Amino acid sequence: MAKLCVQLEDIRAAAGRISKHAHRTPVLQSVSINRILGAELFFKCENFQKVGAFKFRGALNAIACLSEEKLKRGVATHSSGNHAAALARAAKLAGSNAHIVMPSNASTVKKAAVEGYGATITYCEPTLEARESTLNQILAREGRSLIHPYNDPRIIAGQGTAALELLEEVKDLEVVMAPVGGGGLLSGTSIAVSETLPSASVIGAEPLNADDAYRSMQSGEIEPSHSPQTLADGLLTSLGDLTFAIIKELCAGIVTVSEESIIEAMRLVWERMKIVIEPSAAVPVAALLEKRGEIPGNRVGVILSGGNVDLERLPWAR
Amino acid sequence: MAKLCVQLEDIRAAAGRISKHAHRTPVLQSVSINRILGAELFFKCENFQKVGAFKFRGALNAIACLSEEKLKRGVATHSSGNHAAALARAAKLAGSNAHIVMPSNASTVKKAAVEGYGATITYCEPTLEARESTLNQILAREGRSLIHPYNDPRIIAGQGTAALELLEEVKDLEVVMAPVGGGGLLSGTSIAVSETLPSASVIGAEPLNADDAYRSMQSGEIEPSHSPQTLADGLLTSLGDLTFAIIKELCAGIVTVSEESIIEAMRLVWERMKIVIEPSAAVPVAALLEKRGEIPGNRVGVILSGGNVDLERLPWAR
Repeated sequence: MAKLCVQLEDIRAAAGRISKHAHRTPVLQSVSINRILGAELFFKCENFQKVGAFKFRGALNAIACLSEEKLKRGVATHSSGNHAAALARAAKLAGSNAHIVMPSNASTVKKAAVEGYGATITYCEPTLEARESTLNQILAREGRSLIHPYNDPRIIAGQGTAALELLEEVKDLEVVMAPVGGGGLLSGTSIAVSETLPSASVIGAEPLNADDAYRSMQSGEIEPSHSPQTLADGLLTSLGDLTFAIIKELCAGIVTVSEESIIEAMRLVWERMKIVIEPSAAVPVAALLEKRGEIPGNRVGVILSGGNVDLERLPWAR
Repeated sequence: MAKLCVQLEDIRAAAGRISKHAHRTPVLQSVSINRILGAELFFKCENFQKVGAFKFRGALNAIACLSEEKLKRGVATHSSGNHAAALARAAKLAGSNAHIVMPSNASTVKKAAVEGYGATITYCEPTLEARESTLNQILAREGRSLIHPYNDPRIIAGQGTAALELLEEVKDLEVVMAPVGGGGLLSGTSIAVSETLPSASVIGAEPLNADDAYRSMQSGEIEPSHSPQTLADGLLTSLGDLTFAIIKELCAGIVTVSEESIIEAMRLVWERMKIVIEPSAAVPVAALLEKRGEIPGNRVGVILSGGNVDLERLPWAR
């Protein structure tokens, strides 16, 4: 087995770097959801993280790893969502600045958040090609450091700190679940869990409509999704080579879920726990609702990845 | 000054009685809401209380004060909302049972909650007269104990425990705010605050469309609202003689707010704090948004009274 690009010590180092600015989010339980799902669930509430998502952890760690010189030149990325806001805010905190390539159809709320953190935005056509070529021009012209949303060891290590905190707080978990899009959260979680609690399984949860991780695990090769359509807008991206190498090695499986289950799970958490989570965060809960039999164990940690929702357009109100 | 019907020692006794079954709810802060409102706010999150509202505290205390004989005979009340569910659940926990008179137009969600806790429901026309006469028939026929939703010293003492916990956790508050409908929460809060932190002011917040407490404070007499229409469906009731006597004596003032401010405040809390609160709970936040100048002091405790919302019918989605 080749050495993975991120080790437990990297996650521990990231935890130290981000501790000043990131929230140590609470772990919540719900008696009624436990009853409904027939399991004891422990929800790590990254919807309460700054910028409303775990993405702040990775962005903060990546920025903290830059030299003074690089901070002066600034950072850049392309993102339509939480990574954009996270990187903009983390850069601002470090006295640096971010240039974000956003697709022209990104939501007004998300554009405003990124602007609010003082980042420069360049809009482009909403295709991966346009995003990458626009970003490459900016990188070449401005000499900024690229901070990729997930396929970056500093990002993976940062995202792994959420699971590290969960395992510190809750003992004897049998399973830890996280959603999977590009795989930054799931790969970081896999390393944190496998090295601190090897008896526990890590299981990824993914929309059936964006099931690249499931298919990649089956074939052993990265099988990208092309223009996937899912409510879970944080999970549209496909695995990268770094995240896939870790997930293939350490993750016990990927469970796919229907759009209906995502809506049902999201609503269940809102109604029973009185907290706001985004569709992507509901995906592991949807897996427990839809495919309880495929998920072994009774004590289950679930990383609720974020809470950024357009309150005007809730899926059950359509 | 006449001796009030509830004293601090009653609230302390209630705190002891309910500690086994009620949650000690968290106190949350939001940096961005503090910035928007120009104050340091401490939110006592009763939306996380069992049955999703502070009402569980009073119901639990009232039930705990009953003799074995009375528990056997059961309890009764009329309520379309949170008190019904709270009493049903508290009765069940004590091995007793509740008979609830509900208006025929009560929401399906609330009917289901009350039924789920094993209570008997009798439906009646949605008028106060029909509710009271139906309840009186049940009380006469079944020999049950009436547990009034707010005009009852046991209920007032129970509701006061939320403020007691808030003051234990947060020091040097200058203001404590609570919404006011029938006045159980506001009167209990007034006693807890005035006797443990006399330097702090207690301020009630009320929809302008259901402003009986404001008018009653002006005239010195109870001035009921007749068929008020407000989104804050927990605040439709008018003050009772017991709650008014306390509020008149101890509460520094009542601030009224528009329906638009209630929606704006509710949305602000959902978006910035990622928690679900009901319109009634947003009313004190609306007061801070709309009439900051009328509310002195910088360190403000706010009791977020509940989180029971019909997710199909959010006010901003109309």
